[in-house]
Amino acid sequence: MNVFIIGVGLIGGSMAKDIKNFDPEAKIYGIDNNENHLEEALSLGLIDNSATYQDLSIADVVIVSIPVDVMVSVLPKVLDVVNDNAVVLDAGSTKALICSTLDQHPKRRNFLACHPIAGTEFSGPSAAINGLYKGKTNIICEVEKTAFKLQERALEIFQKLGMRIRYMNPEAHDKHIAYVSHLSHISSFMLGKTVIEKEKNERDIFDMAGSGFESTVRLAKSSPAMWTPIFKQNKENVIETLEEYIQNLEAFKKMIVEEDYEGIYNEMSSTNRIKEILNGIPLNKN
Amino acid sequence: MNVFIIGVGLIGGSMAKDIKNFDPEAKIYGIDNNENHLEEALSLGLIDNSATYQDLSIADVVIVSIPVDVMVSVLPKVLDVVNDNAVVLDAGSTKALICSTLDQHPKRRNFLACHPIAGTEFSGPSAAINGLYKGKTNIICEVEKTAFKLQERALEIFQKLGMRIRYMNPEAHDKHIAYVSHLSHISSFMLGKTVIEKEKNERDIFDMAGSGFESTVRLAKSSPAMWTPIFKQNKENVIETLEEYIQNLEAFKKMIVEEDYEGIYNEMSSTNRIKEILNGIPLNKN
Repeated sequence: MNVFIIGVGLIGGSMAKDIKNFDPEAKIYGIDNNENHLEEALSLGLIDNSATYQDLSIADVVIVSIPVDVMVSVLPKVLDVVNDNAVVLDAGSTKALICSTLDQHPKRRNFLACHPIAGTEFSGPSAAINGLYKGKTNIICEVEKTAFKLQERALEIFQKLGMRIRYMNPEAHDKHIAYVSHLSHISSFMLGKTVIEKEKNERDIFDMAGSGFESTVRLAKSSPAMWTPIFKQNKENVIETLEEYIQNLEAFKKMIVEEDYEGIYNEMSSTNRIKEILNGIPLNKN
Repeated sequence: MNVFIIGVGLIGGSMAKDIKNFDPEAKIYGIDNNENHLEEALSLGLIDNSATYQDLSIADVVIVSIPVDVMVSVLPKVLDVVNDNAVVLDAGSTKALICSTLDQHPKRRNFLACHPIAGTEFSGPSAAINGLYKGKTNIICEVEKTAFKLQERALEIFQKLGMRIRYMNPEAHDKHIAYVSHLSHISSFMLGKTVIEKEKNERDIFDMAGSGFESTVRLAKSSPAMWTPIFKQNKENVIETLEEYIQNLEAFKKMIVEEDYEGIYNEMSSTNRIKEILNGIPLNKN
């Protein structure tokens, strides 16, 4: 099996590692604009060879894991050169624009739109780890538009990675993911910003930070190059979630200003059921 | 050494465990309004005996770890009954009201105002763990108001718990802790609320939540009984931090609305330095 990874970072690199583990015969080729990343991926053994877009004609599987703005220009080119029997998977955090971009492509049936919900706040080939996908959810969109035998090949890989599959249309994906992923990133970035602004004058403030703060701002370490195009592509949904979040914060502030401490108690108490909800998230048992 | 723990939950119970580890001779007495917690603490071996406020006359060390609203009424009563050679420590997340309440107490020199910055999102005796305080920061306020030999006894305990000490005045403590702790809790609670509100109609949404979401809403599992009085006592500072946070979120939203993606990139990029700042937090290496 010839597997091509376009974008040999955390997502593509971790997938390469797992594929190599369950199929040592697989030949892994890496394509990346960043020469340093390619060399790093080679020396880390994530890929067997570096390759170019021309080489894609020999691919059985192509995994495209690059920022979503580059994705929309790269995916059509990839489909142009792959053979009729190749399956091309993406790993983009947005799905609507990617799906609509490829909708009329003559090789649309070679493409499977995916969003493996897995990752860490780190990036690049050195961030790639074994077992990143085990127990994680993979959202697949417009599955009916992919050739049946190519669906099968992709699903076999996902099964071996240990992923569970959810099918969804691209618009529903983008709407829901704005709540459970994109908004978390913004709330975390802005929390980090608010505290850093204060810290300019008061260096000691971080001596006071505990593990609660660290966990809440963890996502503020994420890559701007990856996240800017996500917010751009999912603009309308992200604005909606941000407005609801700001409204909730304003309402909470109003209760403090008006000394409605019973209201504050009830607000927190009813949100406590996030405990049970989180226990239902399969991936967080690690 | 007779050690009394008033409030045998996560904070008091974990302290009892560590004290017992480094001083097996220490006798640990527990006082708690909640009879179930007392029984649980006894059966878990956190305390050797349950006790009452009258018994406090034999105490060498009293650790008060109860919600901060109860703290301000309990601490004066505790000081009333302890002997002249006892040191009374609190573990409150606010310091200004507690310190001003005790300022004129005849036994003020028996009190040491502390905020050990340690904890988890869990509570109650069963949440108590060994080594909770190792490497963590303990903020001590108005140290000069505590009798010298009693400071020494307390500092010896903190040293054996593995804590590092920072001295601060109560007003500075309350102002800074609002940024690095109280605001994180509100941002997390409101994030949880925003997503739960959505989930009412869309149960599947949480299938899409990954570890990033879980880490960002972790603090929304926290106890409302503990946090409501903290927000009450630190009202002015909490409102100020919330206003700055909301302003930053509004500005971020405006950039998305106006499609200023360069601004969004720069905003995230400059906040990325939270990485280095967090590496400087000693406690987060566990």
